[in-house]
Amino acid sequence: MVGMTRPIITLLTDFGESDGYVGAMKGVMLSIAPDAYLVDVSHQVQPQNIRQAARILENVVPYYPEGTVHLVVVDPGVGSERSPIAVRTAAGYFVAPDNGVLSLILDTDAQAVLLDNTAFWRDDRPSDTFHGRDIFSPAAAHLAAGVPLTGLGSPLAQIKRLPEAPLAVEGNSIRGEVIYIDRFGNVMTNITPLVWADRDTLVLRWQGEDIRIDPQRASVTCGWHNLSQIRRRYSEVKIGERLVLVSSNGELEIAVNQGNAAAQLDLSIGDHVTLHLSK
Amino acid sequence: MVGMTRPIITLLTDFGESDGYVGAMKGVMLSIAPDAYLVDVSHQVQPQNIRQAARILENVVPYYPEGTVHLVVVDPGVGSERSPIAVRTAAGYFVAPDNGVLSLILDTDAQAVLLDNTAFWRDDRPSDTFHGRDIFSPAAAHLAAGVPLTGLGSPLAQIKRLPEAPLAVEGNSIRGEVIYIDRFGNVMTNITPLVWADRDTLVLRWQGEDIRIDPQRASVTCGWHNLSQIRRRYSEVKIGERLVLVSSNGELEIAVNQGNAAAQLDLSIGDHVTLHLSK
Amino acid sequence: MVGMTRPIITLLTDFGESDGYVGAMKGVMLSIAPDAYLVDVSHQVQPQNIRQAARILENVVPYYPEGTVHLVVVDPGVGSERSPIAVRTAAGYFVAPDNGVLSLILDTDAQAVLLDNTAFWRDDRPSDTFHGRDIFSPAAAHLAAGVPLTGLGSPLAQIKRLPEAPLAVEGNSIRGEVIYIDRFGNVMTNITPLVWADRDTLVLRWQGEDIRIDPQRASVTCGWHNLSQIRRRYSEVKIGERLVLVSSNGELEIAVNQGNAAAQLDLSIGDHVTLHLSK
Repeated sequence: MVGMTRPIITLLTDFGESDGYVGAMKGVMLSIAPDAYLVDVSHQVQPQNIRQAARILENVVPYYPEGTVHLVVVDPGVGSERSPIAVRTAAGYFVAPDNGVLSLILDTDAQAVLLDNTAFWRDDRPSDTFHGRDIFSPAAAHLAAGVPLTGLGSPLAQIKRLPEAPLAVEGNSIRGEVIYIDRFGNVMTNITPLVWADRDTLVLRWQGEDIRIDPQRASVTCGWHNLSQIRRRYSEVKIGERLVLVSSNGELEIAVNQGNAAAQLDLSIGDHVTLHLSK
Repeated sequence: MVGMTRPIITLLTDFGESDGYVGAMKGVMLSIAPDAYLVDVSHQVQPQNIRQAARILENVVPYYPEGTVHLVVVDPGVGSERSPIAVRTAAGYFVAPDNGVLSLILDTDAQAVLLDNTAFWRDDRPSDTFHGRDIFSPAAAHLAAGVPLTGLGSPLAQIKRLPEAPLAVEGNSIRGEVIYIDRFGNVMTNITPLVWADRDTLVLRWQGEDIRIDPQRASVTCGWHNLSQIRRRYSEVKIGERLVLVSSNGELEIAVNQGNAAAQLDLSIGDHVTLHLSK
Repeated sequence: MVGMTRPIITLLTDFGESDGYVGAMKGVMLSIAPDAYLVDVSHQVQPQNIRQAARILENVVPYYPEGTVHLVVVDPGVGSERSPIAVRTAAGYFVAPDNGVLSLILDTDAQAVLLDNTAFWRDDRPSDTFHGRDIFSPAAAHLAAGVPLTGLGSPLAQIKRLPEAPLAVEGNSIRGEVIYIDRFGNVMTNITPLVWADRDTLVLRWQGEDIRIDPQRASVTCGWHNLSQIRRRYSEVKIGERLVLVSSNGELEIAVNQGNAAAQLDLSIGDHVTLHLSK
């Protein structure tokens, strides 16, 4: 049950904004929870890209007030055997298909239910192609309106998780891959989480231990490119020059100051990236 | 007069989101109706595509609470003889140019006014090129703030309607056309409204009578393609395979499971589609 | 300090909507100012195009209620020496990087502060690449929640301004340039502000004096094109024909009725445009 005076529901979908699908979902939610405050996170997830949605969600959820309901509809398997679910974690409530899209926000205390109580569907005969409107949106709105999680359906023991891209740590090098490219062409990798311990020390947490990195001595190779040092700011290099730094979400990031690194270095999701701890 | 504690105004335009036109309209509305809750339905209607906007509106309106004000600005004739109007139906209020964009939401009791009471314009000398900001937005906000429909202008007897794409029913076949292609490449036709009467019977309402369809025996031709059966779910065929089903808005839909049917079958708006009731 | 019951914060960024950056900022603001009402003006500013953002802001601000907080994050120099600032004018509050993006909304009484009071940052160790989330959004939300401008940091004497594109007035001709092309391909120039004094007289204010223009006798040249007359409405010419008129923001505009003038006349930002006052 959500205790906010004006309950927040965030929306993350791959519906785009040109078809009215999102508009229909908003109407459904405002009819059920007239005081809800709807926040568009993104409707521009690439069609059916579950991994992209999982990552956006991970980067957004920590900044929302406790009790926020996060509605995620990236649902290539709509109408098939994948289940509609709702989940509660310390960070908030989540309503989504059980296809791995919640992988990155689950905590050890996550409590989940199947959305099988048809009393909280929009209609007991939902469409087979638009569960976003008929099952997910009503569930999110009922949570926002104060229905307890367990009222929405029967308990679910296991939530689907996406396989994680592995980090290989060998001697002085850490091998990962490109997992995301943002609108500016900044290239994010799975070499994360990185935190600045102090001005001259960067720390990578890996399998419970801390790997200390000297940013002056470190270098990164990707494809034919070799980039020395890990910087703090884009502006440490000239406009148009490439650099390596730590993204705002703690990932090793390859960028070009005021330019497009993905285009300039010809990098794509899945490309290998190696961090060398010393030259 | 709208009786909601937090009146909802939805926005549907072809303004895109990169020019500030929508931002200006929102400011105008919030200045007049500070408690209004603005909901973006879409600003990505194709420039000046009245028919697309009419269809999005039709698919969105049924899900909003009674009393919602729907503002639609797709207005290729701005500044010409087409009239700005406001309409009330059982489903809500509508503010739009009288160019047919409201065709699909009108009911028999629709009451309409011309927006000719200049006291409710933003300025009694509106721009000639941006009635969205100067006439339509103020009207929507005044409705949301409690001004009665008839206060906004003089009664209008006739609202413009778009000609409907005709359905031809001959013996065992129903000929329609492609009317919409969504972001995923799903192809919607004007063979509608379709409702599942039970697991094995689909019903098409046409000119007041019900045409019963056996989904196992039905088939669809479009261009060089022939597709057998009408399915319930994308997942009834393998990923990448084509199928026919009923869209979430009750239309005959041609799709590819997790793929782009419009691209794969080379279908465009206006293409002929024939539903054969038996092989 | 903002005195609105439901304080408005508008958002204008170049973040796009596919990366979650905007979603994170909204979460930060709603955590600080739970009653704030967030309005998306645009997140589709071209990456790092400060001038475009400045112009959108100018065209939007006048329509918002007094006390509105306008958050602008177009920040190619994030993490460098450019300062984060907040400004108060008669029109509202502004939070932005001090890179010229506020040039067009400054008035003579503008009061500015550096955002150097770390107590109002999200964290006293902000990221070096995402001040939008860590410094700007918190500042906007604290203003919305009632913190006075001067509480956010130390006074700032000088705000950076972009150089203005000059108008050259010589005898009977006024030479300016293309400054903006909107989604429809309408071409806006810096020949502004233009106001209709009456049906037959247009007035251009230039360096404190009024230049009177007879719209019937005026003509415009740009590239190889010559266009006679200044019109009031797109519909004064046939569909597909070119014309000159006054934009909804008072600029000399070159357009094609229901068509794309930039494409048809091959015009780009920076191209010269000359207004001849008589043939």
